[in-house]
Amino acid sequence: MPTPSLAELDTPAAVVDLDLVKANLRRVAAYTREHGLRWRPHTKTHKTPQFTALQLQAGADGITVATVREAEVMSTVARDVLLAYPPVGEASLARLMALPPEVHLSVALDSREVLAGLSRAARSAGRPVGVLVELDMGMRRVGVASPEEAVALAQAVRESPGLTLRGLIFYPGHLRAPQDELRPLLREQSVRLSAFIEALRTQGLAPEVVSGGSTPTLWRSHEVAGLTEIRPGINIFNDRNSVAVGACDLSECAYSVLATVVSTAVPGQAVIDAGSKALAKEEGPAPGYGVVREHPEVVVRGLSEEHGLLDLTTTPWRPRVGERVRVIPNHVCASVNLHARLHVLEGGQPVATWDVAARGW
Amino acid sequence: MPTPSLAELDTPAAVVDLDLVKANLRRVAAYTREHGLRWRPHTKTHKTPQFTALQLQAGADGITVATVREAEVMSTVARDVLLAYPPVGEASLARLMALPPEVHLSVALDSREVLAGLSRAARSAGRPVGVLVELDMGMRRVGVASPEEAVALAQAVRESPGLTLRGLIFYPGHLRAPQDELRPLLREQSVRLSAFIEALRTQGLAPEVVSGGSTPTLWRSHEVAGLTEIRPGINIFNDRNSVAVGACDLSECAYSVLATVVSTAVPGQAVIDAGSKALAKEEGPAPGYGVVREHPEVVVRGLSEEHGLLDLTTTPWRPRVGERVRVIPNHVCASVNLHARLHVLEGGQPVATWDVAARGW
Repeated sequence: MPTPSLAELDTPAAVVDLDLVKANLRRVAAYTREHGLRWRPHTKTHKTPQFTALQLQAGADGITVATVREAEVMSTVARDVLLAYPPVGEASLARLMALPPEVHLSVALDSREVLAGLSRAARSAGRPVGVLVELDMGMRRVGVASPEEAVALAQAVRESPGLTLRGLIFYPGHLRAPQDELRPLLREQSVRLSAFIEALRTQGLAPEVVSGGSTPTLWRSHEVAGLTEIRPGINIFNDRNSVAVGACDLSECAYSVLATVVSTAVPGQAVIDAGSKALAKEEGPAPGYGVVREHPEVVVRGLSEEHGLLDLTTTPWRPRVGERVRVIPNHVCASVNLHARLHVLEGGQPVATWDVAARGW
Repeated sequence: MPTPSLAELDTPAAVVDLDLVKANLRRVAAYTREHGLRWRPHTKTHKTPQFTALQLQAGADGITVATVREAEVMSTVARDVLLAYPPVGEASLARLMALPPEVHLSVALDSREVLAGLSRAARSAGRPVGVLVELDMGMRRVGVASPEEAVALAQAVRESPGLTLRGLIFYPGHLRAPQDELRPLLREQSVRLSAFIEALRTQGLAPEVVSGGSTPTLWRSHEVAGLTEIRPGINIFNDRNSVAVGACDLSECAYSVLATVVSTAVPGQAVIDAGSKALAKEEGPAPGYGVVREHPEVVVRGLSEEHGLLDLTTTPWRPRVGERVRVIPNHVCASVNLHARLHVLEGGQPVATWDVAARGW
């Protein structure tokens, strides 16, 4: 079947500009090379092995996953996989141990319960597994909060058969400030992180890996003393939230949802066929749920499941029923996850359709 | 393969109590019979043909869909299908016309553009299609706002070859008040609706169908004068938002997401493996994103993609890593849509796995 043109695609459809993806990857590859940081992109954003392959071609040192399913799917193209999530339960551990033997696997964890299960599974499978001790650096989601707890857990890892202590990991997801407000926050992170690193070193547990990083803090990762590796996810596509914190420009957003105007009956708005089931109804730093790529002054001010409400009070543009637009959502990971496939564009036209193969669990 | 027990299911997993589903359906069937209303449930909530079949067995007069894909999938079990969404574009219209010929199809629309396309497609396919003129009854999403516009559009339908005017349709999605505050709002709806019905009648266009209804207003639909049909969707499963407006009790929520506690490292909370990609990060009338079924005092206070943060400050319950809970999400339609399959329980144990076959477009 020949690839349909953009005008022929049925809507809503998730589309990705490959030229922008490659530029985004080149930029982060150059940045990490310049600052001597290892680059381990998080693949939860795209959940698509073809994009993982592009990240590795662009120079990524390994990849990050959040689920066992992502690990399984990405292991078809990647040889160094970090599960940045505590694996719990016999079923999950069995699937993890069944990854291809050539895959170097490491796992983040923050408890002795998870450590015990992982050690048992690794030993019984005869599979070497690296462990990173997860720190809470202020996000208050997971992770140990004090250097003493980190040392105790690292020691327990060291004593666990089948496992190798690799180092420390954290996710600074609470740092979503504009770029010029990040410096003092990252300085505070450096102080906090040094205390953890120093405590481990004193006990002969010096971390080989100190893994952090997010897309909002991406371009200032070098300001965090002690960091050896970053794990940005969103950066491959970017999104409206990343624009809002100054991590990218709107012109660097590679992902959008192609949609058709289906109603203009209510004055001051146009309704498109991309709703919360195509864009994801997640609030962000800016009001609304997304912007129109061709008319960035136009915000998606409301979402029902199959309706996106474009606010036309800010624009002279008056779309007709049947007209098509591309919407950049607030949070790209949540939107991608709503689509079974991504239409890949080159020069603005579809050249391939890639399955979002790692959806679900 | 034998069906796994609830304790063996890999998490996160979407589970549905069939006993509660059947009770929810019996209740709405009795209500509509008592009040002489036709019942045309919206299948977007479950997107699963097996649940459509249960709705029809329980006495539903037909079904409602929001997408062409839902129409295609549900046409395998239903013979009377209303597309409550304006179909736009050649591809969508062609797929709609290709539905099995024995399916009675009707379509809601609010513009001459959509009418013209539909008429062309119906005539060329030789397929009879009923049309409902969509009204804006205050939600300001789609629909014509004045009786004059409704009459003009109804007349245009009457004059469109291939199409039959069936009546009026609206969605009162803006009415989400507690049950005891609904009465004056529904009285106001009655007055507004009467003006539309009267205007059509005066022009010899008396509507045979006047279709409305939602889950929050479900049990007071009989207070809306002139209504002939209701289209509740969520009611089959119910959800936390429906509990918040008093449309159901928590004990009537048939859908939940089974999850495992993966971290208790941060004091005052437990982290489960059901995040925004399992529950959907949609705000509702109550704070947070869901409640724990077994501990309804515990709210999901935050969501990352694969992390749900349970607030333990309101409970003496202290879950261990590895413990399992079931979470009732704010908005069930958004959560169901994140799962490829639903695990169906009878007597609290899985008896079947049904594909959410109408996901996507």
